[in-house]
Amino acid sequence: MTTASICTIGDEILIGQIVDTNSSKISQALNRIGVKVRYMLSIGDDREEIITKLDKCLQQTDIVIVTGGLGPTKDDITKEALASLSGATGYKESPEQLAIVKRILGARHIELLDINMAQAQVPDSCEVIPNQLGTAPCMKFAFDEGRYGHSAVLYSLPGVPYEAEGLLEDILKDIKKHFTLERIIHKNIITFGVPESVLSKQIEAWEDALPEWLHLAYLPNATIGIRLRLSCYGADDESRVARMDEEIEKLKEILGTTVYGTGDDTLQSILPRLLKCPPEAAYQETISVAESCTGGHLSELITSTPGCSRYYNGSVTSYSNDVKINVLGVNPEIISNFGAVSRECAEAMARGVANLMDSDYSIATTGIAGPDGGSAEKPVGTCWIAASHRDRSTGEIEVVSKKVLSMSASRDVNIKRFAANALDLLRRFTEQQLF
Amino acid sequence: MTTASICTIGDEILIGQIVDTNSSKISQALNRIGVKVRYMLSIGDDREEIITKLDKCLQQTDIVIVTGGLGPTKDDITKEALASLSGATGYKESPEQLAIVKRILGARHIELLDINMAQAQVPDSCEVIPNQLGTAPCMKFAFDEGRYGHSAVLYSLPGVPYEAEGLLEDILKDIKKHFTLERIIHKNIITFGVPESVLSKQIEAWEDALPEWLHLAYLPNATIGIRLRLSCYGADDESRVARMDEEIEKLKEILGTTVYGTGDDTLQSILPRLLKCPPEAAYQETISVAESCTGGHLSELITSTPGCSRYYNGSVTSYSNDVKINVLGVNPEIISNFGAVSRECAEAMARGVANLMDSDYSIATTGIAGPDGGSAEKPVGTCWIAASHRDRSTGEIEVVSKKVLSMSASRDVNIKRFAANALDLLRRFTEQQLF
Repeated sequence: MTTASICTIGDEILIGQIVDTNSSKISQALNRIGVKVRYMLSIGDDREEIITKLDKCLQQTDIVIVTGGLGPTKDDITKEALASLSGATGYKESPEQLAIVKRILGARHIELLDINMAQAQVPDSCEVIPNQLGTAPCMKFAFDEGRYGHSAVLYSLPGVPYEAEGLLEDILKDIKKHFTLERIIHKNIITFGVPESVLSKQIEAWEDALPEWLHLAYLPNATIGIRLRLSCYGADDESRVARMDEEIEKLKEILGTTVYGTGDDTLQSILPRLLKCPPEAAYQETISVAESCTGGHLSELITSTPGCSRYYNGSVTSYSNDVKINVLGVNPEIISNFGAVSRECAEAMARGVANLMDSDYSIATTGIAGPDGGSAEKPVGTCWIAASHRDRSTGEIEVVSKKVLSMSASRDVNIKRFAANALDLLRRFTEQQLF
Repeated sequence: MTTASICTIGDEILIGQIVDTNSSKISQALNRIGVKVRYMLSIGDDREEIITKLDKCLQQTDIVIVTGGLGPTKDDITKEALASLSGATGYKESPEQLAIVKRILGARHIELLDINMAQAQVPDSCEVIPNQLGTAPCMKFAFDEGRYGHSAVLYSLPGVPYEAEGLLEDILKDIKKHFTLERIIHKNIITFGVPESVLSKQIEAWEDALPEWLHLAYLPNATIGIRLRLSCYGADDESRVARMDEEIEKLKEILGTTVYGTGDDTLQSILPRLLKCPPEAAYQETISVAESCTGGHLSELITSTPGCSRYYNGSVTSYSNDVKINVLGVNPEIISNFGAVSRECAEAMARGVANLMDSDYSIATTGIAGPDGGSAEKPVGTCWIAASHRDRSTGEIEVVSKKVLSMSASRDVNIKRFAANALDLLRRFTEQQLF
């Protein structure tokens, strides 16, 4: 199998100032065309380190993708290190990139300096893939079998994320010219509500019977749930693809209603499906939210989906009891008798916001996110969640509710878990799974 | 200088499904105590690769921090690889971690399975640092000079970000026991409202005059603004510490009202200071929020500060115009005459929520986060923000407003910028800077 390594260069990564997002984007692209990424590496702006580590990468993998260290300033030394590594005898000008440099600076009315012109100078040992979005070009260095015992190719890209991303398609095309690639297919099954250890027990027999070319991975996430990723290697063989689909069907059957989606689905992105509001429908079902402890996070999750204004009316964050009573219409006796963190209050909040915003569905949360507060009876991590549905023919509102216990001391983690559980309660409610 | 390498383990990173944020957090922490991170590495769930690469890391750096691959399921093989690398003769039980496993599962009413119990089993060659937030403990492996030519320590942490982060303080303490570290002091000055390039021009002369042991770094962040971090190396010398404080005072003077905080301050964490609501005060000033395009994010930011219930009443996310009109009391003519994205609407929303929730201050946002929508006159990235203050003696509400233009096509980035600008507007309003 054709393998790759990805190397990011820059002190800003090593001191933790910047999170490297390029490697993830590049690796997604390589995986799509069947190149296996063996490792990723981040190193500093140090000439010797760059040469030594890239030499190692070329020994160990067929393809090396480098990002960063191509800026016009003195601290950027990747180009010079690559010239040395590849045994360049000098520099040459890329007329195509020079034209781009002039165009970009001209459009921004920036004076063309020597350091800008130098961006179009490249080692004579490389081939240029022009970068339309920035001044530093992509440089490609090809090494024959004599050097590393296998033919190897190194691509050097600028570190600016959108410039690196903009070059990826050209690089993928180029890779396909150099290597015969095996096909890989990845598919996700997304679950919520069952812990990883229990899930793995449920699917143990199924997992043990998988062929060795079909690989399962667990990806837990507080907001999304647990994604189960199946990877099919050697997917040029159509029988494998068919078998993969069969195994996915079996998996779905075993897990039942724990499964809520596939691909990149999230509990918030599936709302249009749950609510019956296709773009062309005459009547669009709507939803509203009443939050206390989740403080706006639930609303933020829902509005992270572009186009949500079609079905989302809005929310009330009722952080104080006065707002619960005066805006959401929660009966003050509920709060004095049962407390703000109670089934009764969560249900009243769900009803209250559905009435206030005249929505078909609603979700409510009230709990203790911590780190302080709580009691023996209602410890930090306790949350009551509720969901409501209005029957438009009778006008009646049906409400369901549930207690969530998150054992984390982290305010942030608790808020994420409460909000995700509230979305899952709505899902199960609309699918009539619980009641 | 004591050096470290950071190694993340997991196929999900290599196929680009997950962005590694642990390495950045760990590297920030190591840099804070004076450990230089030489490189970061991400590798897959492959036993041989784990052993070979970690062996290399231990050869090249004094400290190796490993995250990931410690889950209870079969695809997680880090523990077994570490047992082999460190020459363990078998496994032992960590009674402390076992108690935590039982507590966590018990509290969540999850059945205790063999694979959960196994989380407390560790190679007999390691020392356990208990993980209070999850089931997999931190394992510490110490190697004497005989093995690598220098004393080396490897710490293996779970990959779940908040669990890894929760263990960092204990690990830093432990590192200080093993290595003699040079003292470094880092101090932050936090600014909002001036772009990085303008800021750097303003402080150019000051920066050029800094001694070489005093180092400045720019840390831009959409939500926080630009943090300027000064690092004083060799801080055992008291005269250096005094000089550092002097330079910080000079910097504050140059930047004036652009500076809003120090340390870990954020625009939302300084609210208690702005609002005059010390815990012991008889009257607590309060704030409420009306959001449209920010969708709950502004409210979430405010509630991310523990104890905010003292001054935060709550918010309305008025995603639909009906909610703006019926809940916030925005005059429908404002929307038909000026549109929902207008100065008039933002101001009416700010007034509306202040009245609805009877708060002293309020903030409002209404804009176009994108990626779709917008017009030539109001492109994606346009947002009107407003802030209000009620004079309790006269009952009158004063409102200020401002247009924000974010040049990003990313919905997420725009939402963050709008919310941060709204908080900054409130800051300048309460400090009477603008008006």
